[in-house]
Amino acid sequence: MADMKLSKLQAQLTKAGLPARVDGEDRTVSGVNTLDEAGPGEISFLSNPKYRRALDETRASAVIVAEGVQVPDRLSSLRCDDPYAAVTVAIVAIHGYRKHPQWGRSERAVIDPSVKLGANPNIAAGATISAHVTIGDNCTIYPGCYVANGATIGSDVTLYPNVVIYDHGVLGDRVTIHAGSVIGEDGLGYAPRDGKWLKIPQVGRTVIQHDVEIGANCTIDRATLGRTEIGEGTKFGNVVVIGHGTKVGPDCLFVGQVGVAGSVTVGRHVTLAGQVGVAGHLSIGDDVRVGGQSGIHGNIEDGSELLGSPAMPIDKAKRAIFVFQKLPEMAQRVKKLERDLAELRERVGATSSH
Amino acid sequence: MADMKLSKLQAQLTKAGLPARVDGEDRTVSGVNTLDEAGPGEISFLSNPKYRRALDETRASAVIVAEGVQVPDRLSSLRCDDPYAAVTVAIVAIHGYRKHPQWGRSERAVIDPSVKLGANPNIAAGATISAHVTIGDNCTIYPGCYVANGATIGSDVTLYPNVVIYDHGVLGDRVTIHAGSVIGEDGLGYAPRDGKWLKIPQVGRTVIQHDVEIGANCTIDRATLGRTEIGEGTKFGNVVVIGHGTKVGPDCLFVGQVGVAGSVTVGRHVTLAGQVGVAGHLSIGDDVRVGGQSGIHGNIEDGSELLGSPAMPIDKAKRAIFVFQKLPEMAQRVKKLERDLAELRERVGATSSH
Amino acid sequence: MADMKLSKLQAQLTKAGLPARVDGEDRTVSGVNTLDEAGPGEISFLSNPKYRRALDETRASAVIVAEGVQVPDRLSSLRCDDPYAAVTVAIVAIHGYRKHPQWGRSERAVIDPSVKLGANPNIAAGATISAHVTIGDNCTIYPGCYVANGATIGSDVTLYPNVVIYDHGVLGDRVTIHAGSVIGEDGLGYAPRDGKWLKIPQVGRTVIQHDVEIGANCTIDRATLGRTEIGEGTKFGNVVVIGHGTKVGPDCLFVGQVGVAGSVTVGRHVTLAGQVGVAGHLSIGDDVRVGGQSGIHGNIEDGSELLGSPAMPIDKAKRAIFVFQKLPEMAQRVKKLERDLAELRERVGATSSH
Repeated sequence: MADMKLSKLQAQLTKAGLPARVDGEDRTVSGVNTLDEAGPGEISFLSNPKYRRALDETRASAVIVAEGVQVPDRLSSLRCDDPYAAVTVAIVAIHGYRKHPQWGRSERAVIDPSVKLGANPNIAAGATISAHVTIGDNCTIYPGCYVANGATIGSDVTLYPNVVIYDHGVLGDRVTIHAGSVIGEDGLGYAPRDGKWLKIPQVGRTVIQHDVEIGANCTIDRATLGRTEIGEGTKFGNVVVIGHGTKVGPDCLFVGQVGVAGSVTVGRHVTLAGQVGVAGHLSIGDDVRVGGQSGIHGNIEDGSELLGSPAMPIDKAKRAIFVFQKLPEMAQRVKKLERDLAELRERVGATSSH
Repeated sequence: MADMKLSKLQAQLTKAGLPARVDGEDRTVSGVNTLDEAGPGEISFLSNPKYRRALDETRASAVIVAEGVQVPDRLSSLRCDDPYAAVTVAIVAIHGYRKHPQWGRSERAVIDPSVKLGANPNIAAGATISAHVTIGDNCTIYPGCYVANGATIGSDVTLYPNVVIYDHGVLGDRVTIHAGSVIGEDGLGYAPRDGKWLKIPQVGRTVIQHDVEIGANCTIDRATLGRTEIGEGTKFGNVVVIGHGTKVGPDCLFVGQVGVAGSVTVGRHVTLAGQVGVAGHLSIGDDVRVGGQSGIHGNIEDGSELLGSPAMPIDKAKRAIFVFQKLPEMAQRVKKLERDLAELRERVGATSSH
Repeated sequence: MADMKLSKLQAQLTKAGLPARVDGEDRTVSGVNTLDEAGPGEISFLSNPKYRRALDETRASAVIVAEGVQVPDRLSSLRCDDPYAAVTVAIVAIHGYRKHPQWGRSERAVIDPSVKLGANPNIAAGATISAHVTIGDNCTIYPGCYVANGATIGSDVTLYPNVVIYDHGVLGDRVTIHAGSVIGEDGLGYAPRDGKWLKIPQVGRTVIQHDVEIGANCTIDRATLGRTEIGEGTKFGNVVVIGHGTKVGPDCLFVGQVGVAGSVTVGRHVTLAGQVGVAGHLSIGDDVRVGGQSGIHGNIEDGSELLGSPAMPIDKAKRAIFVFQKLPEMAQRVKKLERDLAELRERVGATSSH
């Protein structure tokens, strides 16, 4: 957290490609907050002019707003074309990213002697690092994390509390995994035999590439053979569930509660909204976007935008849903057509017989 | 657990507004159980007279039943108009609520010297309380819990094992959080830039009001700015997922696997059944009830009862689903109408031409 | 992991009822892998002849293939009618099941003096076993697990890291529970009173029978009274959520993110695909199969195969979905029928009037 003059923030915005100007007193701000919750010394923002009235009530000292928006005299403002983009720059400039507690290599962490530990380890009491694990530089591992034998972790990795990495998991650099997520557990690998399920040893791995961020309480199966893989720069929300042997491309965004079955291939920059489900052994192209609660049951081409369960092209889905909501009326209309047609047929019969 | 004479239980029921009378021997009971599983010394209940036969086979010593229901001679009974309500009183009277192990302030808990700890702390070995945390009186914190720096926890709070409270989280009094839940993790806050996702620091908080109970393995995002909030007296099932900046009102009930995206406002006393999904930036009124697996994609008025994905008023939804299930027949009927109409048109053409 | 001659693997396959023959050099292999990822010294397999080209590029030393499939000269092969079945035998023979770290009874585990511990305990630092727990022989309990008071655990049980067993939970022999799963938490047991939710003590138990395997981050409620039960040999994927008092039969398979509400009875050998939801108080027969994302809202007969939300017999569901996807066209056709009929009626009126 850093105190910052509006003029300094303005300079940073301009540098970030978001030219701005200070309107009013060049105040010092020490935090960013919503209009509702901001107090003196904080800066807020107004992105949608529809909510302009909130400016009258905010206790903030300054706001980021577009040119032309009227602002009460008591507020300083930073005028900028894209206040929403500007506020993210302001958050980084004033708050920065989370500072982790500094434990060094805690004596109360359980670290096997065979572990290869990089520079500046930050490993908490109550973390367990098993045999033959390799960990890069500047890694933070919170309490309750368990890194199983043979795992490989890159540099600048953060594992929040109670993250579990099963044996031989691989994490790239700058990977962040939020609390309670499990990486590399066995998938549902059973052979059916006489009505029972015989376990097949799951001997593949899970590979999480550079710059992936994974939400809380997610689960990513290891592969039966080979690898499950999450591509560079991909981000998951919470409770995302990935099946064994699935390969997700780079720069994807999976929202909370997405479930992808096993042996699926997902391209790059794919967005799956909340609670989407993907059946097994499918291929999803690049730049695909899928709406919330949709179910994918077939291969999907690059650039598709889908909705529904089973998922359809979004325009088609919206039209089908529109008609679905009027189905009872349509049933009435079909019934009336049948009645009217029968009646007409009778009249025609009468007509044609005279 | 307390042994109790039926006459004493009767007195407690009457006091709770559920007048009852003892029918048969005034036995002592030491536990409440289902008719199937009860043994000697236990009391059971029959709520639905349809299952009366289970009375003949139960090994219980006593049952709570309505007047008029015939009960085998060997069983004592407590006669009461509402056996279902009465059994909840009996459970409280005989079993009470869970007694936690008593650790005091365990020497094997990791508690930062800056922590402000209330009276009667009950903090287990393997719990971690970080810097500048404030904890009220009579709190129980199980092993594996992690309370991050700056969090504030009220009095009479219970955190079951492996609960994680991220930095600056706020919990009111009498909050209960079940095992594995995560409060205040970062939400999916990224700015898209050239096909990549740039992380926006998530500097808001999560506030859990008094008397909230949260199930196991839930996740409640912190806000990007401002607060995510769960209202007083609200109860969540397991694996409920709440997005950043969402505000849930008091006395709501969210069943297992409900997912609510970010920036949603939910009113008071709203019931969301299992696996319901709510899209972002919506407003849901008071006393709304939504059926299982429904998907909410628009603002919802007070008192609405909804079903379906996308959700519709429940009566309309049920009629639409009814027709949906007969769609293949309707398709046949439309086809037949087209054929019959074409035929009739031909006849009319012929008729009109002679 | 064991090095193995192809001729020895052939003998094991034959013994397992999968007759095979070595084609080419009798090489030694030390691992099983996919065709893509295998390296020298590894054996792979080709199950679907459609992907035959992968044989040309694999770096494996040997492959399991059907008779008649052409294989590059440099590869040894094991010829076998069912390569997919054979590879599971090969994985067991060469890799075997996961070997756990050996902690014995760690001095850094927290084990109450009243715990009854069987032979060969393998309990890690950071595991907590509370009062009056009974644990059988050869159990492995990873760090961060919490076994609450009065729980009973059979022999040969594995609890992966951060598994939580609430008080009085019962686990049979050879039960495996993956990381982060919670067994026996309180269900959503509240009595509504004046718009508030009054907690009913949840005094029942959770019973997990022999040979059950449960995925990561699942939650299985305890019963309010009596028991929640998971039948012998049943397997769950990740994030499966089971409500209070539900009884699941033996040899079922529930895929990831399945949610079953409370007081449901599920028969034997039932398969619920990913994200299926089951409403409360229902009865599902034996050998039922339900497709992904389906919603069960009524009792289901033995042997049913279902799809959809609400679920229908799968053939009917597929036809209804087929028509659903063409609803906009059907709406057009109904409109056209109305227009055409009106027009014809007019003509008939005209006709009949001349």
